[in-house]
Amino acid sequence: MKNFVFESPTKIIFGKGTESVIGEEVKKYGKKVLLHYGGGSIKKSGLYDRVIDSLKAAEIEYVELSGVQPNPRLSLVEKGIELCRKENVGYILAVGGGSVIDSAKAIAVGVPYSQSVWDFFEGKATPQEILPLGVILTIPATGSEASNSCVITNEEGWYKRGIRTDLVRPKLAIMNPELTFTLPPFQTACGIVDIMSHVMERYFTNEKNVDLTDGLCEAALKTVIKNAPIVLKDPEDYAARAEIMWTGTIAHNELLGTGRVGDWASHKIEHEVSGIYDVAHGAGLAVILPAWMKYVYKHDINQFAQFAVRVWGVAEDEENLEKAALEGIKKMEEFFQSIGMPITLQELNIPNDRFEEMAEKCVQTPTKTVGNFVELGKTDVLNILHLAV
Amino acid sequence: MKNFVFESPTKIIFGKGTESVIGEEVKKYGKKVLLHYGGGSIKKSGLYDRVIDSLKAAEIEYVELSGVQPNPRLSLVEKGIELCRKENVGYILAVGGGSVIDSAKAIAVGVPYSQSVWDFFEGKATPQEILPLGVILTIPATGSEASNSCVITNEEGWYKRGIRTDLVRPKLAIMNPELTFTLPPFQTACGIVDIMSHVMERYFTNEKNVDLTDGLCEAALKTVIKNAPIVLKDPEDYAARAEIMWTGTIAHNELLGTGRVGDWASHKIEHEVSGIYDVAHGAGLAVILPAWMKYVYKHDINQFAQFAVRVWGVAEDEENLEKAALEGIKKMEEFFQSIGMPITLQELNIPNDRFEEMAEKCVQTPTKTVGNFVELGKTDVLNILHLAV
Repeated sequence: MKNFVFESPTKIIFGKGTESVIGEEVKKYGKKVLLHYGGGSIKKSGLYDRVIDSLKAAEIEYVELSGVQPNPRLSLVEKGIELCRKENVGYILAVGGGSVIDSAKAIAVGVPYSQSVWDFFEGKATPQEILPLGVILTIPATGSEASNSCVITNEEGWYKRGIRTDLVRPKLAIMNPELTFTLPPFQTACGIVDIMSHVMERYFTNEKNVDLTDGLCEAALKTVIKNAPIVLKDPEDYAARAEIMWTGTIAHNELLGTGRVGDWASHKIEHEVSGIYDVAHGAGLAVILPAWMKYVYKHDINQFAQFAVRVWGVAEDEENLEKAALEGIKKMEEFFQSIGMPITLQELNIPNDRFEEMAEKCVQTPTKTVGNFVELGKTDVLNILHLAV
Repeated sequence: MKNFVFESPTKIIFGKGTESVIGEEVKKYGKKVLLHYGGGSIKKSGLYDRVIDSLKAAEIEYVELSGVQPNPRLSLVEKGIELCRKENVGYILAVGGGSVIDSAKAIAVGVPYSQSVWDFFEGKATPQEILPLGVILTIPATGSEASNSCVITNEEGWYKRGIRTDLVRPKLAIMNPELTFTLPPFQTACGIVDIMSHVMERYFTNEKNVDLTDGLCEAALKTVIKNAPIVLKDPEDYAARAEIMWTGTIAHNELLGTGRVGDWASHKIEHEVSGIYDVAHGAGLAVILPAWMKYVYKHDINQFAQFAVRVWGVAEDEENLEKAALEGIKKMEEFFQSIGMPITLQELNIPNDRFEEMAEKCVQTPTKTVGNFVELGKTDVLNILHLAV
């Protein structure tokens, strides 16, 4: 186990009707909030009205900024920063899924910073201050409600870049599984893949002696695998929605990564795909993850065999670990298909004519590689993209 | 899954040599600390000197209060409160195991309270304020380094009573598994039982649809079961000591209890035993837990069978759940014995002549019962004590 620092102070208020306390919770931090959200779905569902009522009851003033898109854009973040400065906003409240939360995080670190917020995403500067930030989560997927990460897309060049700092962990996450009842099946499934990917990126590590976190990862994966078909069959199954929602937070608040180094190549490759083609992150991951696994499993057949046996129920076969490993990957693909996810780029209508560009962008790092479990160069990324066709 | 609020903000600094940063960390909160510890072991090991060096390097003043005993006493807590007030201390630093940490927590809530700190433990008052509190952990066991609980023994009448409030969660826990290398086998084993008990008290719940936390609990238990024999054979096995140490925190920071109601009868019964006889808490639990299980398993044979199969590797037998359930309890007893723990009161030299008194004290609650999985009255507690003979 590697040395680590772990600090996850987000206050989680989980369960039925919990959005009604938002006003009282915000009051502890500020008098005026930016209410940040996507489109009209929170108005249609009545959530918007309940939030406004709670803010008003607590005598909190608010300004609004809606219009967050999937793969949230830098231009809206900049608009939000300006608005917060002009209106003297003291608290950012994100109501929505990961895109809204990440947009809100970027606004919150941008307000106290005098130059372009994109500096942080290009590694030119490190955030030192942030406005307090709260979340009412409506889509279990990115884990952004308690994570230390934030991913934004710059439309100039379609760069999708992330930052990681404990500073961006929200102070508060209100999580009511009922709010996820109306999620369409495709979005539900994308969230499920995203949650699983956060666990798997951490699961495949070169660190040995990580029994506890191996076990926690396996528990998280099995919980999602069991409950996914239930929510797709009955979108209003509260118990199953709750399991997925809480797992989504645990999958990415960094607990499962304590003492180990995760891989994250699949995420970075997928970021290039969805940065250019604007596909849903979860769907992109469902395509990239199996291709990545097929490309790297020989690096540690033991861990892939363990994954197959413990997570996917593949029969243990110490004589033939490779067979078990490959069967595990196959079972994962079948699972993705069973919940309506693509497992090839073709299904996403993505041609192969920009692979070169994606691979090039993907390894624009100081080491010219991507991934920690296996360090991949540009050619490796190209090979994985070709495996994903 | 039940509605819940979860907030576990303790900053964990985990790994080799991490105690060297204590001065810099304390500096964020105060200029003068109370250094609180037990006996001479931290001096013998050199830890004391390293802590003092780090405090001095950060220009932190300190006063000392040593002498914390197992089952920490109210009288020393009161002495600590007085000392902190007199010396104008702004931060409590506990260096030791659960007893030292609980003693420090009680001092920290006692200093800003004008009346007797025992009021909190008798439920006559609720803590509203606390001095900031940091921990350098030397014994993985109670989970107190990140927990919301604190247990103190009042020598007048030998009452052992606890409080639960997020206020007492330490700001900081420094956890270096190397500091546990010198723990004697008995203390190591007591810690292991205590850690497992915190998981099991939460595992046995009447709440259904708790897949994630069931799985997290099972992962924690299996980690300890695997690594316990390793550390008992080789006390300086860093990897195994690290697994047990980190599991000890996760077992009791409340994550594993989110969305479910734990039982806690075994803890309360054991508190009466160790309150009177001053036995090690872990050893007492090793005796009470199996007796409790034998008394209550019929209440939910499914959960006990699941426990046996998933945690203890008992063969699944849907035809005979009771057989599996009982086999799981037997395997747990065998495990406790294998790590040198008693499983009967006789082995602890505890006679049966004060059972009546213990049972009576144990159910001194508003409902006259103890436990949530099964509510036990005085007669039930007596029966369990007799099963533990």
